[in-house]
Amino acid sequence: MQVLQVELADRSYPIVIGEGLISKAELLNKHIQGRQVCLVTNSVVAPLYMDALKKTLAGYQVDQVILPDGEQYKTLEVWATIFDALLSSRHNRTTTVIALGGGVVGDMAGYAAASYQRGVDFIQIPTTLLSMVDSSVGGKTGVNHPMGKNMIGAFYQPKMVMADISLLKTLPARELSAGLAEIIKYGLISDYDFFVWLENNIDKLMQGDVEALTYAVKRSCENKASVVGKDERETGLRAILNLGHTFGHAIETAQGYGNWLHGEAVAAGMVMAADLSYRRGAISEAELQRIIAILVKANLPVKSPANMTDDVFLSLMGVDKKVMDGRLRLVLLEAMGKAEITSSIDPQQLHQTFAACRAA
Amino acid sequence: MQVLQVELADRSYPIVIGEGLISKAELLNKHIQGRQVCLVTNSVVAPLYMDALKKTLAGYQVDQVILPDGEQYKTLEVWATIFDALLSSRHNRTTTVIALGGGVVGDMAGYAAASYQRGVDFIQIPTTLLSMVDSSVGGKTGVNHPMGKNMIGAFYQPKMVMADISLLKTLPARELSAGLAEIIKYGLISDYDFFVWLENNIDKLMQGDVEALTYAVKRSCENKASVVGKDERETGLRAILNLGHTFGHAIETAQGYGNWLHGEAVAAGMVMAADLSYRRGAISEAELQRIIAILVKANLPVKSPANMTDDVFLSLMGVDKKVMDGRLRLVLLEAMGKAEITSSIDPQQLHQTFAACRAA
Repeated sequence: MQVLQVELADRSYPIVIGEGLISKAELLNKHIQGRQVCLVTNSVVAPLYMDALKKTLAGYQVDQVILPDGEQYKTLEVWATIFDALLSSRHNRTTTVIALGGGVVGDMAGYAAASYQRGVDFIQIPTTLLSMVDSSVGGKTGVNHPMGKNMIGAFYQPKMVMADISLLKTLPARELSAGLAEIIKYGLISDYDFFVWLENNIDKLMQGDVEALTYAVKRSCENKASVVGKDERETGLRAILNLGHTFGHAIETAQGYGNWLHGEAVAAGMVMAADLSYRRGAISEAELQRIIAILVKANLPVKSPANMTDDVFLSLMGVDKKVMDGRLRLVLLEAMGKAEITSSIDPQQLHQTFAACRAA
Repeated sequence: MQVLQVELADRSYPIVIGEGLISKAELLNKHIQGRQVCLVTNSVVAPLYMDALKKTLAGYQVDQVILPDGEQYKTLEVWATIFDALLSSRHNRTTTVIALGGGVVGDMAGYAAASYQRGVDFIQIPTTLLSMVDSSVGGKTGVNHPMGKNMIGAFYQPKMVMADISLLKTLPARELSAGLAEIIKYGLISDYDFFVWLENNIDKLMQGDVEALTYAVKRSCENKASVVGKDERETGLRAILNLGHTFGHAIETAQGYGNWLHGEAVAAGMVMAADLSYRRGAISEAELQRIIAILVKANLPVKSPANMTDDVFLSLMGVDKKVMDGRLRLVLLEAMGKAEITSSIDPQQLHQTFAACRAA
């Protein structure tokens, strides 16, 4: 069992990483201040792990909310049902909301915890590789709006994150790959040594090797925590975590939420960002090919959808929240293992990237 | 023009109090960082002041949301329409949400500002006496749930509050009285000298005297800011601001939101709290009568509704957020001008208060 402390002054919290954690009552108990707990999960995760977690929480008033599964349900309407449950069971201000699930469950439960009575305690138990390395660190919570992803939410830090690697045994292969997309991202934006380690260990990771996964989760969270610790509310540096996300969000929006997994859209988006970086002379063609190669080995898409024209991309990128006053800002690579945020984009090169990265 | 600085570290902001402020462009401009503004108001205030404010904001992209008027519309559903407007007009993260209205508009616009893209700038222009002295200070924003008032929201501080006393000229007499209830509350909980001043000036205030109102708003905000500055997130001391509110919220819930004004419910609730304080020996019968007398002069209700039995009160107080782990905590008077928070309530005395304060 390993513990990584995310340092955010009075909102600091531990990420505990290891096997078999959800059975360890003492780990959870010390982060629960009251006698009430509200478990928020979804219809896929509930039959797998709900009973085990409830057993661990014997002694508390435990109520549950089972959300429908999928990004398309990450809406204000579905989110509001969490309050119905909290209020029906008379949860007070000392209650703890526990998210048991992937990013969608974590985002919705976290935003509900941020909002219920203007803020109650929150614990995250991510059940996907993506949520272990992405939503575990950074405090971003929220829901989607038909006109944009994650447009409504809060920055809200959990009291603890429990990354139980054992839970990944039931994770579908496609979702394992989606998680690897974000892990590869950390190598690209801030940790070239880790990128090389990933190139050498991608097969083990794809096979679900516990030791390799534990290392990858820990190093990813360390990388993210280091960035977030310097810029909690995303005023500057933190934007580098969005490598591939501006393109990726456009893909998710165009295809309808839930059809592409977030990590899949980010993978294709990272190729686009890398392609544009190559055109700007920041990385070599060989380096671009290495990025594509590891994503292909991770079974991830490396092309944008055939039906997405340049105009569709630009229009969808126009409402993206990384845009300042109508001007396009993108996260690109300055070199392998180093990201930059830039608003000096050559439209010509951008169009070349759209063309080069579009599926036939 | 007077300026009161609310001190909250990096979230400090000024409250500007005076006449004719909404025409002063330079006052607003220096608190607007981007080029976009979203005015949130309601159907009663819009025809009165929207044009004047838009004129002041010439030069900005100004979009507007006109909410239906009334506490019964302080719901998640109505709140969500603010995001529709922000996204349709492509507001980015540098936008400023300006609330022009009373407490309901301020609470909803503030919570939308807290949530849009996880937080954008917020300016409050209160148009009621109640919102000038209550929601101007403290950062409480949010909406109601059918099972409880203000159950969903955020602590979120504005960049500035502009309390334009001129706007009170169009305020209905009933709402002026409701504002006076909260002003009298500040005297009772923390400022006996102010309470005495209010006893001597209640007639002037009821007549809308600008000088008296300016003084009362400033001194109320000072009192509230002093309490909030010591306890921003309501972990302890700040609860004294809720004198009369536990009873008052029960009245509002039982009667349906919007039928009693918030200040009216608080007035009846303060009499109940004062009555219980008298039964505990904390204040004399003569002091209880002074409290009732000033509220009567302010045309406020001093009895709870005839149809509210003890059981209805207790049940509605059970989901109140001031309850810790099922135990009733109340704000009572320790003396005139001094509040206390206590959970040692004698049920017998509480029932006597219910009986004594119920309308025939």
